[in-house]
Amino acid sequence: MDGDDRAYRPERVVELLRELDRRTGGPGGSRRLAWTPEWLAARAWFREALAGLPVTVDQDEAGNLWAVLPGARPETVVVGSHLDSVPSGGWLDGALGVMAGVEFLRSLAAAGIPPACTVALVDWADEEGARFSRSLFGSAAAMGTLDLDVLRTLRDRTGEALPDVLAAHGVRLDNLDACRARVADVKAYVEVHIEQGPVLEERGLGIGVVTGTVGIERERLVLTGQAAHAGTTPMRLRRDSFAAAARFALAVAEVARAHDGVGTVGWVECKPGVVTAVPGETRLTLDLRHIDPAALASMLAGARAAAAEAAAAEGCEVAWEQIWSIPPMPFHPALVEAAADAVEAVEGHRFSLPSGALHDASEMARAIPTAMVFSSSTNGLSHTKEEDTPTGHLAMAVDAFDRTVRRAIDLVASGAL
Amino acid sequence: MDGDDRAYRPERVVELLRELDRRTGGPGGSRRLAWTPEWLAARAWFREALAGLPVTVDQDEAGNLWAVLPGARPETVVVGSHLDSVPSGGWLDGALGVMAGVEFLRSLAAAGIPPACTVALVDWADEEGARFSRSLFGSAAAMGTLDLDVLRTLRDRTGEALPDVLAAHGVRLDNLDACRARVADVKAYVEVHIEQGPVLEERGLGIGVVTGTVGIERERLVLTGQAAHAGTTPMRLRRDSFAAAARFALAVAEVARAHDGVGTVGWVECKPGVVTAVPGETRLTLDLRHIDPAALASMLAGARAAAAEAAAAEGCEVAWEQIWSIPPMPFHPALVEAAADAVEAVEGHRFSLPSGALHDASEMARAIPTAMVFSSSTNGLSHTKEEDTPTGHLAMAVDAFDRTVRRAIDLVASGAL
Repeated sequence: MDGDDRAYRPERVVELLRELDRRTGGPGGSRRLAWTPEWLAARAWFREALAGLPVTVDQDEAGNLWAVLPGARPETVVVGSHLDSVPSGGWLDGALGVMAGVEFLRSLAAAGIPPACTVALVDWADEEGARFSRSLFGSAAAMGTLDLDVLRTLRDRTGEALPDVLAAHGVRLDNLDACRARVADVKAYVEVHIEQGPVLEERGLGIGVVTGTVGIERERLVLTGQAAHAGTTPMRLRRDSFAAAARFALAVAEVARAHDGVGTVGWVECKPGVVTAVPGETRLTLDLRHIDPAALASMLAGARAAAAEAAAAEGCEVAWEQIWSIPPMPFHPALVEAAADAVEAVEGHRFSLPSGALHDASEMARAIPTAMVFSSSTNGLSHTKEEDTPTGHLAMAVDAFDRTVRRAIDLVASGAL
Repeated sequence: MDGDDRAYRPERVVELLRELDRRTGGPGGSRRLAWTPEWLAARAWFREALAGLPVTVDQDEAGNLWAVLPGARPETVVVGSHLDSVPSGGWLDGALGVMAGVEFLRSLAAAGIPPACTVALVDWADEEGARFSRSLFGSAAAMGTLDLDVLRTLRDRTGEALPDVLAAHGVRLDNLDACRARVADVKAYVEVHIEQGPVLEERGLGIGVVTGTVGIERERLVLTGQAAHAGTTPMRLRRDSFAAAARFALAVAEVARAHDGVGTVGWVECKPGVVTAVPGETRLTLDLRHIDPAALASMLAGARAAAAEAAAAEGCEVAWEQIWSIPPMPFHPALVEAAADAVEAVEGHRFSLPSGALHDASEMARAIPTAMVFSSSTNGLSHTKEEDTPTGHLAMAVDAFDRTVRRAIDLVASGAL
């Protein structure tokens, strides 16, 4: 199972991606927003690329698109990612993993005999959540972790309701759970994705092993002081909510650094928000991430202490509203080991890193042995038309992905997974 | 000219103000936005209150409403303020000075003989600039300091153009300068206003003498870093424009404190402005004020140094765009002395303070000897429906105003001004 024997041709993956970009990209970047005609065009190319392979292709009750190659056993290894993109996104985010899966199925089929276990390729629906602010839609549906009461309230910027848009694509909220049957026999999940960050590039590496996806604590803070006239209120009599926000932002960055995690204040709004008034209220978002649950909890505690101190220093008060949280999702040791062996075989090292971004693999890892391989991202950029990766790194990534999945098939067939 | 001889009844001013509030206020605060029906309703009450007095009332080419009581000489003392308010504003801001002027004219007329010089009361048009973002409209027109090219471009939030709205009120931009003839014989200007800040209240005082209005430097800063994924970008590789903004806001507050001035960051916007992204660009407004020109210049230089340092500390760049500036406007020594004598006679002290807010007096002081008297503002609040002042303080303020104007008339009549 090495070298030419694998019949796995990484350059074909790049060809599939280039054609996808020709069909659904443009000067402004990729336009594969979920539940839109461009997304359906991407899926049409996906179906075309699978044509002639001995696979059954169909959509499940959550809108995930599956291509199943039956193996010697019903136990299943799933590979996949997502074709949907953010608006004006990049050509590789998600698409790399789906097209690598197409080439992987082709190479398996070319062997002329069924694989040792069933292999399924999935294009998860609406991973980005860019339209309705609910990411990981399809994979969360497969894991049964969606909150239907929340989904029923979601609307896009034009006012269209999620349930109506889903219905137009054959997806009914009251029937979502039926898609969980698709993962009943799944024993392993492997995904290849671009890093979407600068770590591999900074180390001069093309690929890396992913140890898991980080946990996230996402909060909204409301700092309340006293709105006041910018000209008539002496500095010593102010209760400036933005000054408190500024203290907090700097302090929480120190908390993140001290824990070797990340902490981000990405959105800030001052009220009344005019040049002539001391802000009486400042709202901001906080996003904390760490791969270790204890460290993440410690970061959140540190952030709470920092906010209380910042507010007190400016005579303000602070209130917290949780937006969302997800625990760290460590990947499966045996599959991470398999991925490290693959990366070593391809690029001669075993460098591993946590994924700071969420992926469909984060949902799968809740219940199914999971692994991921990353390629580098040029300048660390993603979710923009400038997103890119050197072709040689893409080829290494899909090569390491191929090796990892073949090991997963062996592990499942042998009953080790 | 003291005690009952003056026939000046401060309580009548409060009655005039209460009636104005009944006609143009409400649960949400005052609604006397310039160039609207409520503003015209306020002016109608102003005209009613003047009825029966031996004054000529008419509107000038800039929309200022004048009531002129001819005196023994053509040289004129002007008193006044503005009836327009911000949306949801208070009942006293501006209206106090106009209604104090009405009572002052009444008391002069009651004397039965012409005053020693002509006295004019003016309701300046659109002092607040709340609708078209150009404050001091009418008084700036009288001083010839408006920029017509800028005015022609201004629109309100509904898209209405300033020139069209002015035309509906009989004001033509190409004829504004004609109103300057109104101030040709003016030798002194006196205004009474609420402080709109907490300084008098904090000292337990009801009234104070105003030494001048502060100079203002108003700037927009654009801090540019690199937008990046909040999960995948390690802290040490970030160029976080909001972190730079936070450093700047804290540093510029220190600059203001060190100069005994004020500095305010009132508006902030992050781009892309989402919870999952390090802000690549942060824009903010800065408002610096000081009564001393050298101190104001030093504050601005300190702010520039602080911004450069803050940007450098976060790997960002900073650009400045001037929004507006006005130099400090010190009031006339002889009139400030007259106001201090009046405050001492009324409340037994000579406490003086600069005005941190602009007033029509700021425009008049460019070329005409000017003075102001402040009343306290409860909790330092203004531009809100909670704006208030104890009735006793209002009475003291209009009493001190009356005494100051009578001194101004004497000074003008004697040729000292």
